[in-house]
Amino acid sequence: MEIDLGYAKLDMDRKARQGADEVIYGESKTAVQIAGIASAMADNGCENILITRIDAEKAKAVTAAVSIECEYRAAARILIANPAPVKKTGKIVIVSAGTSDMPVCEEAAVTAETLGNNVVRLYDCGVAGIHRLLSHSDELSSARAVIAVAGMEGALASVVGGLCKCPVIAVPTSVGYGANFGGLSALLSMLNSCSSGVSVVNIDNGFGAAFIASRINKMTTAK
Amino acid sequence: MEIDLGYAKLDMDRKARQGADEVIYGESKTAVQIAGIASAMADNGCENILITRIDAEKAKAVTAAVSIECEYRAAARILIANPAPVKKTGKIVIVSAGTSDMPVCEEAAVTAETLGNNVVRLYDCGVAGIHRLLSHSDELSSARAVIAVAGMEGALASVVGGLCKCPVIAVPTSVGYGANFGGLSALLSMLNSCSSGVSVVNIDNGFGAAFIASRINKMTTAK
Amino acid sequence: MEIDLGYAKLDMDRKARQGADEVIYGESKTAVQIAGIASAMADNGCENILITRIDAEKAKAVTAAVSIECEYRAAARILIANPAPVKKTGKIVIVSAGTSDMPVCEEAAVTAETLGNNVVRLYDCGVAGIHRLLSHSDELSSARAVIAVAGMEGALASVVGGLCKCPVIAVPTSVGYGANFGGLSALLSMLNSCSSGVSVVNIDNGFGAAFIASRINKMTTAK
Amino acid sequence: MEIDLGYAKLDMDRKARQGADEVIYGESKTAVQIAGIASAMADNGCENILITRIDAEKAKAVTAAVSIECEYRAAARILIANPAPVKKTGKIVIVSAGTSDMPVCEEAAVTAETLGNNVVRLYDCGVAGIHRLLSHSDELSSARAVIAVAGMEGALASVVGGLCKCPVIAVPTSVGYGANFGGLSALLSMLNSCSSGVSVVNIDNGFGAAFIASRINKMTTAK
Amino acid sequence: MEIDLGYAKLDMDRKARQGADEVIYGESKTAVQIAGIASAMADNGCENILITRIDAEKAKAVTAAVSIECEYRAAARILIANPAPVKKTGKIVIVSAGTSDMPVCEEAAVTAETLGNNVVRLYDCGVAGIHRLLSHSDELSSARAVIAVAGMEGALASVVGGLCKCPVIAVPTSVGYGANFGGLSALLSMLNSCSSGVSVVNIDNGFGAAFIASRINKMTTAK
Amino acid sequence: MEIDLGYAKLDMDRKARQGADEVIYGESKTAVQIAGIASAMADNGCENILITRIDAEKAKAVTAAVSIECEYRAAARILIANPAPVKKTGKIVIVSAGTSDMPVCEEAAVTAETLGNNVVRLYDCGVAGIHRLLSHSDELSSARAVIAVAGMEGALASVVGGLCKCPVIAVPTSVGYGANFGGLSALLSMLNSCSSGVSVVNIDNGFGAAFIASRINKMTTAK
Amino acid sequence: MEIDLGYAKLDMDRKARQGADEVIYGESKTAVQIAGIASAMADNGCENILITRIDAEKAKAVTAAVSIECEYRAAARILIANPAPVKKTGKIVIVSAGTSDMPVCEEAAVTAETLGNNVVRLYDCGVAGIHRLLSHSDELSSARAVIAVAGMEGALASVVGGLCKCPVIAVPTSVGYGANFGGLSALLSMLNSCSSGVSVVNIDNGFGAAFIASRINKMTTAK
Amino acid sequence: MEIDLGYAKLDMDRKARQGADEVIYGESKTAVQIAGIASAMADNGCENILITRIDAEKAKAVTAAVSIECEYRAAARILIANPAPVKKTGKIVIVSAGTSDMPVCEEAAVTAETLGNNVVRLYDCGVAGIHRLLSHSDELSSARAVIAVAGMEGALASVVGGLCKCPVIAVPTSVGYGANFGGLSALLSMLNSCSSGVSVVNIDNGFGAAFIASRINKMTTAK
Repeated sequence: MEIDLGYAKLDMDRKARQGADEVIYGESKTAVQIAGIASAMADNGCENILITRIDAEKAKAVTAAVSIECEYRAAARILIANPAPVKKTGKIVIVSAGTSDMPVCEEAAVTAETLGNNVVRLYDCGVAGIHRLLSHSDELSSARAVIAVAGMEGALASVVGGLCKCPVIAVPTSVGYGANFGGLSALLSMLNSCSSGVSVVNIDNGFGAAFIASRINKMTTAK
Repeated sequence: MEIDLGYAKLDMDRKARQGADEVIYGESKTAVQIAGIASAMADNGCENILITRIDAEKAKAVTAAVSIECEYRAAARILIANPAPVKKTGKIVIVSAGTSDMPVCEEAAVTAETLGNNVVRLYDCGVAGIHRLLSHSDELSSARAVIAVAGMEGALASVVGGLCKCPVIAVPTSVGYGANFGGLSALLSMLNSCSSGVSVVNIDNGFGAAFIASRINKMTTAK
Repeated sequence: MEIDLGYAKLDMDRKARQGADEVIYGESKTAVQIAGIASAMADNGCENILITRIDAEKAKAVTAAVSIECEYRAAARILIANPAPVKKTGKIVIVSAGTSDMPVCEEAAVTAETLGNNVVRLYDCGVAGIHRLLSHSDELSSARAVIAVAGMEGALASVVGGLCKCPVIAVPTSVGYGANFGGLSALLSMLNSCSSGVSVVNIDNGFGAAFIASRINKMTTAK
Repeated sequence: MEIDLGYAKLDMDRKARQGADEVIYGESKTAVQIAGIASAMADNGCENILITRIDAEKAKAVTAAVSIECEYRAAARILIANPAPVKKTGKIVIVSAGTSDMPVCEEAAVTAETLGNNVVRLYDCGVAGIHRLLSHSDELSSARAVIAVAGMEGALASVVGGLCKCPVIAVPTSVGYGANFGGLSALLSMLNSCSSGVSVVNIDNGFGAAFIASRINKMTTAK
Repeated sequence: MEIDLGYAKLDMDRKARQGADEVIYGESKTAVQIAGIASAMADNGCENILITRIDAEKAKAVTAAVSIECEYRAAARILIANPAPVKKTGKIVIVSAGTSDMPVCEEAAVTAETLGNNVVRLYDCGVAGIHRLLSHSDELSSARAVIAVAGMEGALASVVGGLCKCPVIAVPTSVGYGANFGGLSALLSMLNSCSSGVSVVNIDNGFGAAFIASRINKMTTAK
Repeated sequence: MEIDLGYAKLDMDRKARQGADEVIYGESKTAVQIAGIASAMADNGCENILITRIDAEKAKAVTAAVSIECEYRAAARILIANPAPVKKTGKIVIVSAGTSDMPVCEEAAVTAETLGNNVVRLYDCGVAGIHRLLSHSDELSSARAVIAVAGMEGALASVVGGLCKCPVIAVPTSVGYGANFGGLSALLSMLNSCSSGVSVVNIDNGFGAAFIASRINKMTTAK
Repeated sequence: MEIDLGYAKLDMDRKARQGADEVIYGESKTAVQIAGIASAMADNGCENILITRIDAEKAKAVTAAVSIECEYRAAARILIANPAPVKKTGKIVIVSAGTSDMPVCEEAAVTAETLGNNVVRLYDCGVAGIHRLLSHSDELSSARAVIAVAGMEGALASVVGGLCKCPVIAVPTSVGYGANFGGLSALLSMLNSCSSGVSVVNIDNGFGAAFIASRINKMTTAK
Repeated sequence: MEIDLGYAKLDMDRKARQGADEVIYGESKTAVQIAGIASAMADNGCENILITRIDAEKAKAVTAAVSIECEYRAAARILIANPAPVKKTGKIVIVSAGTSDMPVCEEAAVTAETLGNNVVRLYDCGVAGIHRLLSHSDELSSARAVIAVAGMEGALASVVGGLCKCPVIAVPTSVGYGANFGGLSALLSMLNSCSSGVSVVNIDNGFGAAFIASRINKMTTAK
């Protein structure tokens, strides 16, 4: 079924076809557009509707414009419309290189939790002090999926990749300056990882990494 | 355990730690170095040792230099040293955009099969004739992992991503010319995919995609 | 005939030579300069003068400064000076990947309509839900020219290209983030399209695409 | 109808859907693959099958391998399999900047002629001697479509764009050195053309430009 | 002689060594630093001290802070400290592609005039209407140096280069959007000019072009 | 010992392992996070805690939030928490190309002084007036480490490299415009230096250069 | 007058319009094409016809194919067809950074000499040993035009620029490796030169630099 | 003293000024040029003359052309002319990521040994098996300088940086493929290293790294 709002065509069969409802990318949509989409989805029975990349002000405007409940997660810049209890299974580990990577990590963490996964957060484990990572190697080796988040040189992904048995999804971040070129250094680093088992998503795409990790975790636990 | 050959330090615990033995990247190693590494691995009990990116001539030289059996898969540019029967489980689908992407596809296919996965090949399903892809949507929706291989504009990954429930690993290829810039166009295209559930590996990295798909397929089937 | 305003030399023979009057690119001109150019054109008999890339505030200043009528189309960021009734012929289809591409689409749509073409808008038909596009394939196959507007990975152009008999003009947009690099990903994707029949204009250049589509549509219908 | 050769899936409905049969891109296919595809197409009634980017040696191998007639056009690097008389209509003008752009021009010219268009060649009309171009302005203003081919700085496209009433398809070439960066300078130049009515195809893509120009010319003349 | 202000070391022999006093680049210096440098130069007899890339507000602050006279040229973003009558010789022609290039043109024009050259301004002569340029070919062929200023595709430089006997200094501007990449398209275009006799300075560097043109003009007229 | 603050894991053994305490990169951390980290470090006995890339406002907020003394060095954008007397040894020379490079120079200078090194500042010694540099060649040849800071074309590093016996650490700066591309021109220039003995750090990374120079100076003087 | 050879249109009025005959860029033309163009030019009275970027083998083929005399200058990769005595005036100095830049230097030197200029060669004066350059400062300050040729970091142009009163034309070369990126480092360096009076031509374009220097030298000496 | 060979100016005071004789970069010089330079240096008393980037064939030609002894080190692609016993001091550790990085490592090792340093080689210690590196942490912490050599993602530099007290010189290599872009990925990675104390040289520049490490080691040991 497709709902045509003029500015958007809602793909209501996505859950059946792909295992999850549409997620609303908030960055370049107006509050009015977001509210319209979220309301239409809720009217058709969608719960825990994820609206990503939305700042506090726009989230407030959306919340005011809709007749459904909304929860804003500031650290993750995510608004959850029509929230409902979520049953969580399995384990996804999110490991980050530095404190500055937290917004991307939290986008991943809130997405993963809302999609029904248990999440373990290991933040500020950059490779400049490699023991910080190694002391958590048990968490890494028991995960069903690992998300490695790093800016600057992105070396974390390769080191984590060498310590895991499960798929590692690497998220380059735009944290850094100069020859970082907006995240390019971490992106290229992760694409060239010398560790097998690492795949990569777009710069700062915490949501995308969590979506994939959730698919892996759930396929595993579904059996 | 580590075996030090001077020019290489073999990581013999990798199977325990990561679920698979080391794979030998053949491109910038000499036949003598490859033969030395493969022999040492075989001496320590490794079977189905994968040597990737090796041309026919170097493969012949390696085969002549070692006392173990070797099988060369020309289309995949892979040499399998100390081959042994492999039990295959699950299903990985490899879908490609064009005939020219075949070497990368076969690198992925032979890797996946050698690691113990059933593989379905859907080649030349580029989006210029979208029906060619849609007629195989059942294969896609029943896969445990899909590898999407495309050069040029790499649009295949997004369309495939919209048809699957399982993780999709996208492999950009260097097929094309001009503003393709050695695979950059397909790489950027896949990193920016509008479909959730798509992660990306390096340009032409068929091996890497298969390694990840195998991890996903096996975690799923192991339960 | 040339009118020299000092800061601009108006090319009053352009309609005879090229089939349409000069269009004023508003972005880097002052309101005073724009008003001067528009007035001089109107004084010389030009109607439906298009001023593109002009925000609401500058449009207001221009409108106040001239003695001719002006119409502002906010969604398209276009000001039409000295508007007059337009007779429309043929059919141009504008298809877009997502809601966020709307400003570029509307720039194309208003330009095309002002130049005398019938326009059909098919918005939010991104390839992640390919059925949304396929359900409109009749519109595509009966168009005289199609404009395909997409950001992110720009895959839409190739899929549309495979469904059309008429020329397809692809417009990459700067919608996206990270490895989108300001529209580069969609631009390269479209330049490398595996579908024949697709040509490309500059990033976000809705006006340019509409100008070309109008030429094609009118040549066709003029016979 | 689809014919599956394993390494290729032939899209036999393309002529009905898109107005022309599939064209075989020869660069990264083997002679055996090309011969297989061409034979299958001929068996299904296709005439004047275009095989582009094929060098003399590979063309000879293909010709030897098939039971149909083949004509090789060396300057265009095109092989025409199963040639048949072509009825030509309308007028496409191909204008080039320099002698070194000829291979790309001829790829465009032979493609356009084979698809049924009359072609006028205006070669070596670079803007360093602008009178060479201006003395042909009648040819340009009477064309139904113009293909502008230039390497180096690609300025030709803008100047031609200012002299035409019909759509101009610009083809950047890789002719040049140094800061030409494989055709990037001409590509960016053409994408940023200050003349309206210019759209762009991939670097060195003479075939693609001719395909589009043919669509425009034939839509026009079909009425 | 060197004057050391701590934050700057003034090179007071530059006029003897290079033919002109130091010019102060205002963009990344504070008003206090600029005032200090200008005052020290004036104290040592410098007249017509050029301060470039300085906005109105900073110019006002500098003027207030020094005890010498200052003249601000808003269109050129240049402040002239300690102004004095200038004797002008020869002829430099500044030709620009569009109205939006004026700030760069005026930076060049004011610099050239202050350094003692007669300047002819030919603005908005873009190649989309090539006759606008050709109608001024006498001015071009009688110049001692020509400065060609253009953004977008920068084609103007090549066409001008083909019409001149004197050296042409090309200035790419950052005017444009999208695949202009901040002036890169015009820069590459001009570096690859098919016309001999064209050299290039940095993007938007009107000052630099005028400095060189002045050297050429004065060497010529000095004989 | 590791102190886990949730958003940060403090590596308290870094002084023993690497010779200096952790340095806090302030740019993308909140004042609350910085205050928390600085306080925890001070509680564990750290003195002269360096917080780099912190503007005046954030520095004020941090100072207000902690119970330890703080000193703000505005020109260097550095906050020193828990300051203590420093014994300085050896000699590091910091040489810069222009006045605009001062913020990066001061970041280096304050870092080096805080880490216990004597610093000589030679500012505005750009190669356009090479005598300004040559007149200080004694300072250069007697240094234990030299830091060469330059934007634009970065030529200073090569000239300095040819005058020194000690290691030269080159710092490209983002000072410039146009084809400077945010510091890329100086970065590439320095990486390609024709002088042996020059290594490079990230664009604008004054801190990093000082940290390395300090290591070299202290190893030397420690003997 | 224009001579149309089909593959080339000869612009026989160029000497009158621009002060020099056409120069034949040999790189991407066949020996047959070059011979045809040179013969036609000689038939029309041209002497000292320059054919650049031509290797020994192609030069031999051209020489054999024409009935006019030809002189090959191997170090410059230049063939001079229909040579005649040249009267030389003025002084152009060519200064290079290293031995490896010689082919570009000689292309410039032979071009300049053939066009009638006296040339002084100062080779291997790289800035790593700045005294090598300074010891020749008299030559530099008495030149009418200076050509500065350098690869790697291209610092030579800025240092030379600071020592000259005449225009400096900088030629980046592709000499180097790694982050040189085919001459990009030297190109960007020269475009960002901190010395006024420096303009830039394409990478390795010795011919272009000499052509411009010749114009400057001759305008000066013509008075 | 300067020796002028025409194609080269030998800087015979470099040892006094910079602590080491000139090193001959062999890549783009002819055997004749190299032989000339080496002979002149030997005639003036230089021993252990380093000729880098020279293949076996050219080394043989040089050896045959000179009357001094020459030693070729194939793995390092270095020829040592006029070899003499070297007294070695201190300790430089060279650590590499993979077997394929050996040529660059050996260039560094032979350079360092020839310049009088003891060298410890730790090869194939890539971070995918982090224990291989950690088991050598004693070597790293007792070094006077460490050279970290890695291609692909270059993560090694950051991890090594976190384990050392001495300066780390990072050498990115061009080992890899695809999004490695000729060493760009490792280069950017190392420039953005999260570990303090890491500076970077050009891609594949083993010589440069060794030269700097030698300076550091010798300054340290000289006291």
